[in-house]
Amino acid sequence: MGGRALVQWEQNRDNAPDGLHVDLYAGGPAPTELKGITFYQVPYAPSTQGVDERLEIIGRMPELRVLQLVSAGYDQVLGLIPDHVTLCNGRGLHDASTAEHTLALILAAQRELPRWAIDQRERRWAPAPQRSLADCRVMIVGYGSIGTAIERRLLPFETEVVRVASRPRPEQDVHGVDELPALLPRVDIVVLVTPLNDATRGLFGTREFALLRDDALVVNVGRGAVLDTDALLAQNGRVRAALDVTDPEPLPVDHPLWEAPGVYFTPHVAGGSTAFYPRARAFMDAQLARWAAGEPLANVVRPGR
Amino acid sequence: MGGRALVQWEQNRDNAPDGLHVDLYAGGPAPTELKGITFYQVPYAPSTQGVDERLEIIGRMPELRVLQLVSAGYDQVLGLIPDHVTLCNGRGLHDASTAEHTLALILAAQRELPRWAIDQRERRWAPAPQRSLADCRVMIVGYGSIGTAIERRLLPFETEVVRVASRPRPEQDVHGVDELPALLPRVDIVVLVTPLNDATRGLFGTREFALLRDDALVVNVGRGAVLDTDALLAQNGRVRAALDVTDPEPLPVDHPLWEAPGVYFTPHVAGGSTAFYPRARAFMDAQLARWAAGEPLANVVRPGR
Repeated sequence: MGGRALVQWEQNRDNAPDGLHVDLYAGGPAPTELKGITFYQVPYAPSTQGVDERLEIIGRMPELRVLQLVSAGYDQVLGLIPDHVTLCNGRGLHDASTAEHTLALILAAQRELPRWAIDQRERRWAPAPQRSLADCRVMIVGYGSIGTAIERRLLPFETEVVRVASRPRPEQDVHGVDELPALLPRVDIVVLVTPLNDATRGLFGTREFALLRDDALVVNVGRGAVLDTDALLAQNGRVRAALDVTDPEPLPVDHPLWEAPGVYFTPHVAGGSTAFYPRARAFMDAQLARWAAGEPLANVVRPGR
Repeated sequence: MGGRALVQWEQNRDNAPDGLHVDLYAGGPAPTELKGITFYQVPYAPSTQGVDERLEIIGRMPELRVLQLVSAGYDQVLGLIPDHVTLCNGRGLHDASTAEHTLALILAAQRELPRWAIDQRERRWAPAPQRSLADCRVMIVGYGSIGTAIERRLLPFETEVVRVASRPRPEQDVHGVDELPALLPRVDIVVLVTPLNDATRGLFGTREFALLRDDALVVNVGRGAVLDTDALLAQNGRVRAALDVTDPEPLPVDHPLWEAPGVYFTPHVAGGSTAFYPRARAFMDAQLARWAAGEPLANVVRPGR
């Protein structure tokens, strides 16, 4: 398909396929000319407050056919585009970054990295025996694209992985989420990496914590509300947690989670690393080539009608 | 070979091979009867100050034939045993723990885990874009048993590994240490995991730092004196460092390294995790079985003459 494409990165303009005119827009004040734009990649911005010009300009693109996001989530644009516009997301582009941060959180908890950081700041040299990740049985709840990327990184650490998804897939040795009560007593570490929906909200709560061994570790890199914060606080250190997402988020300054024993968290930074950019630019090169050639697009989450 | 063996762990006594009498000694006051001991495993203790009874009793074992350490280093006992005693060490037993901690240090530095630990303590929620480990070229200086264990864990993070050892081994794609000047400008992360000897003391100093890119990371999990501390301090944050060993060690309370920009360290805890124990006990079961059967011992570092 021809026409004009509006994208974020110079590499994608430099590699523009024949027959497609590619302009740049990285956010902020809108380009003066929006007519003729058939393909719009919403610029990547880790977080936005107030009026978002990146989204506001969609309404001034009457010829738009494809709205391309580079995030996995797309709820925020569903109400902004007519039915005939095809919506594509950034599934997979954050996998390497998120999987890497998941391992960072697991290792931080097992090897007490927060303790050493504070000891360094307070000039205290006080070695102590450490837990390890080796020999742990690690459950991954949400065995999709990111879950498999986490598993690949975990296995060389001499761990055993237990795969769980919303529905069982016996041919891949994936358990269904209804098997959690039978599986939880056998694992040392649980990684939550599910999207947030009616089935996963509060998925991990009082009942699930009660089934875990003393000193087990729960890691949440999905969405904060998948884990019941009150149930975690009630553990009072019996089960530990390493989180990249919290509920509520951001965490209010007077929230008890800041000082909860055995709880360590990072401020929702798993996906936002430099690993994203080369993967996103390469994806956009290929996606624009598909669009220009009239081939089926990748990562379609809602086809245009 | 028969006689008496003195070892640390109950599992090894319970699994004692036929013909070998196995007693327990876990450190502290010596057993009353040391005569007849032919095989002595020095009990594992992460660090010792003052008189070390574990070593002091070696002189009271006239029939000793094998001195077994479960640490990799053995300098501390060379002067304590006659020439006819065979010395074995714990090569490999700390590999999983040390390799795991190496990845923890790399990820801590790339994903700024110390920053988030201190932000949590100060109740500050301030996300920021992160470096990643993905796409990094990582040099391992000291490509032996631990180096290969580090490489296995690094590769699934979508990294490229450059192998360096004291002597080149072209058939394994291992470069010699004399190639460092040509290789250093091309790498993002350098992992030092060499023993300390005349050739490695101060191996990484002013000249090597100068060849590294801005924002490169140097990780030391070998011995502190392999890295020139003054040269690191002179970087003033241009090159970052994540260390498990320092020079001097322990670090004096008034040392500038505590607050050096871009420097993060842990207090020599890489090898001392729970991963060590099952591996060490399994090794000792097998070693005692070899000894009782008159088979060649594993991990001999100095054969008895």
